[in-house]
Parts: sequence; C-alpha cells; structure tokens
Amino acid sequence: MQFREFYNAVLHTTIADDELLPYPVSRVAFSKGDIITRYDEVEKAVYFLNSGILEMTIKSYMTEKVIDFFFSGDMFTSLTSFLTQCPSDVQIKALTGCETEMITRHDLDKAYAKSPEANKLGRILTEYAYIKKAQREKDFLSKTAEERYAAMFTTHAQYLSQIPVNKIAKYLGIHPESLSRIRKKINS
Amino acid sequence: MQFREFYNAVLHTTIADDELLPYPVSRVAFSKGDIITRYDEVEKAVYFLNSGILEMTIKSYMTEKVIDFFFSGDMFTSLTSFLTQCPSDVQIKALTGCETEMITRHDLDKAYAKSPEANKLGRILTEYAYIKKAQREKDFLSKTAEERYAAMFTTHAQYLSQIPVNKIAKYLGIHPESLSRIRKKINS
Repeated sequence: MQFREFYNAVLHTTIADDELLPYPVSRVAFSKGDIITRYDEVEKAVYFLNSGILEMTIKSYMTEKVIDFFFSGDMFTSLTSFLTQCPSDVQIKALTGCETEMITRHDLDKAYAKSPEANKLGRILTEYAYIKKAQREKDFLSKTAEERYAAMFTTHAQYLSQIPVNKIAKYLGIHPESLSRIRKKINS
Repeated sequence: MQFREFYNAVLHTTIADDELLPYPVSRVAFSKGDIITRYDEVEKAVYFLNSGILEMTIKSYMTEKVIDFFFSGDMFTSLTSFLTQCPSDVQIKALTGCETEMITRHDLDKAYAKSPEANKLGRILTEYAYIKKAQREKDFLSKTAEERYAAMFTTHAQYLSQIPVNKIAKYLGIHPESLSRIRKKINS
C-alpha cells in the first residue's frame, strides 16, 4: 500500500497522483537488521510502512521488551519523542527488508500551521495510536499470555511465521518455552 | 481554570468571552462518589475538569485497578469508547465534588467537519493523551513502585492528601501496606 492511498482512505478524499499532498513524502528503504530510530535519539520523522515488518523495543531494567510490531499499511514513529522532541525511550528496528515513505517533523509542522487536512489526518492517526496503546494496557491487565497470543494470531496470522519466536515471547512478556507450550496447545 | 482559558492557551489564540467556540460547552457538576461514565456504557462526551479529583478504573481479573487520576485543568473522557463508540472498558468516578464543562460527541463531530481549530485542538489533546499513556507504560516497565510514587508526589503533591491511600496503592499496583512503607521512607 502507498501513503497516498492511505491518506485518501483515512480522509475520505481523492487526491490524484499528480496533486500535491500538504507535505513532501520521500521514499526510504531499510535492510533487515537496520535500526531506524535509536534509543536516546530525537525522532525527526514519521513513516508509512509500504512493506516489511518492524519491531519497537523499550529498555526494562536489565533487559529489553518488545512493545510493538508494525506491518504493511501502518504508520510508525517513536511518537512520544516525535511529539516532545525529547530523546527516544524506544528503538525501532527492521525485522525484514522494509520499504517506507517518510515525512519530516519540519515539513509536518509547516503543514500543521496552514493545512486543515494535515491537522485532521494528524488527529485521526494520533487517535489510532492512542486506541492501540490503551488496548495493549487493557490486554495486559485483563488477558492471559495465551489469550493475547490468540488475538495476535487472529489479526496478523500471515506475518507470524516471519517474526522470530523470541521476539514474540518478548512482546507477550513470557519465556520462549511458555510460548512453545501455548503454540502447541493452539495448533493441536 | 475555565475551558475557554485552556482552549486559548493550547491554541495560542484569544477567543473573547462573548465569542462562540466551535462547539457548545455546558456546565455539569458531580458530587463525591458520582459515576460519570460506567463500565459498558458508550461514552458520549468529553469533559474539562474545572475543579475536583476523578479516578479512572479498569477491571482486571477478579479485581479493579486505578489507571488514572484527573485534576483541575485536565480534559477527561473514556477516550477509546468516545472515539470508537464501543462500550467503555473503564469507569470514571468523582473522588471529590467536581465542576466540569462538557462537549458532546455529536457537537464535536459537527465541529470536526467544518472547523480547522477544532481539528487542531483535537489533534493536540489526543497527542497529550497518547504521551501520558505511553509514559505510564514506560514507567511500569522501568520504574519501581517507589520511583513511581515519588514521581506522583512531585507532580501532584498538593492533591495527594485528598486521595484515599487504597486508591493510590491500586494505581501503583501494590498493596496498601507496601505503600505505607514507601511513604514512611520518603517522609523520613
């Protein structure tokens, strides 16, 4: 999926291929293992993921937790750092080769100052990000690891085989051995 | 603080007292113990808290956890329910008498369809809500209960005495006895 299609779908509009969006969008490709945003780096852009899989991690005591995965058609950025321009608490890394489209903070700020459409899209995408984050909090408080894995399996079944098992375990907050048991149970 | 002052401050604008905002705002008062939004109710409004303290709770297995407190000058709503119009997973309750100003979803939707200012304010307030939610996730993953209590003490010291101890313990995710130990240590 291309950002322009996504833009049109979210805003219920039809900006043609030769019309300008409220901000310039540049194409950036990443290889498997590339780090897009590092810990303690200030986030300077938001991205649309055309293809590939990304992980977002956070430091937790002596270890690291996976707090999110991103798939084709998702917007991604270290959002708190992007909004506050403080150093990022999270790191974003390509788990596969990734094609993206990038909008810089500088260009987005200019668009926010004059484009109602840019503000509307920004509002709606931030609403999505909030809903996703609140859902994750709720799931951790009210669902078992098995229920959370089953939900992940329903929504992103086609991608699961491309994510290393230890990453999925880190996302669910369980040991890889516990995940193996859950997988066996679900597949049996 | 009044909503109009907050609106002007966030948007760096100066809408006078006799000018219309993009949506009607009505005053609603709640008594201590009143439930503003119930579990499984669809959220129909967003509120600005002029004065008072509120708690937001979520069901967690057989118990209930406090996931947020709101103070004078905060906007509040069951945001996921408000945005998706699905039944609320959270409940909002007045811990003291509360004065609020309310905007209905219906009026906000009408404003979003035609007012760039409404979209800009909506975007900025959703950004705040996201940052707060992400901060809480990060704190739970990287700070001890004592560090989280100390942070709460710094930002909202003047309100802490008005919140029952068991509510603070439920917010920190610890037993009331552990909180007593932490308080003694901090005060000594």
